[in-house]
Amino acid sequence: MPRFDAAGLVTAVAVDHRTGELLMLAHMDAEAIAKTRETGFAHFHSRSRGRLWMKGESSGHTLKVIEIRVDCDQDALELRVEAAGPACHTLARTCFYRRVDDNGELVRIVD
Amino acid sequence: MPRFDAAGLVTAVAVDHRTGELLMLAHMDAEAIAKTRETGFAHFHSRSRGRLWMKGESSGHTLKVIEIRVDCDQDALELRVEAAGPACHTLARTCFYRRVDDNGELVRIVD
Repeated sequence: MPRFDAAGLVTAVAVDHRTGELLMLAHMDAEAIAKTRETGFAHFHSRSRGRLWMKGESSGHTLKVIEIRVDCDQDALELRVEAAGPACHTLARTCFYRRVDDNGELVRIVD
Repeated sequence: MPRFDAAGLVTAVAVDHRTGELLMLAHMDAEAIAKTRETGFAHFHSRSRGRLWMKGESSGHTLKVIEIRVDCDQDALELRVEAAGPACHTLARTCFYRRVDDNGELVRIVD
């Protein structure tokens, strides 16, 4: 466990452990999972930079991992976290701060 | 919008629009997004079967899409949905029904 894809990754979804709010989506490899379990802070694998990173390593906006859940087919993880600040690099509380309206336009709905 | 990966897919996360609970994760291509917006019910692209499918097409456990949100870099979608039954094919309310304990064992926590 888990079932990694051909690139050795699983999708990880970070969720606020108190409110349940969806915060961000990223990818983890075996190293990122091991580091997360070892330190208690969310680590991911950056596909663009090809390296391990800790969420908040430069911003300080870390995600303390309270619980890790796994889905039915074990190819996705839910990280139940306590966020030390905005989860999004844009400084929004969540990366999912815009909705798609009926015309396909993006409308900001979260500060 | 959105930014599809090399396989023409984006990751989509379905969330209960009332409780915010994370329900399931799947993939959408342009066709699945178009069908979802046209019908109001979540459609995905099955990577294993290589075809469009509507969630609930055989089980009846459809997901009515109340809102679609997009993340900061536009490569992930949040579907805010009303579920007609259990979201998981195992008949659990959510696919994320197990947590990983300190020994790496999976423990069921959701009925």
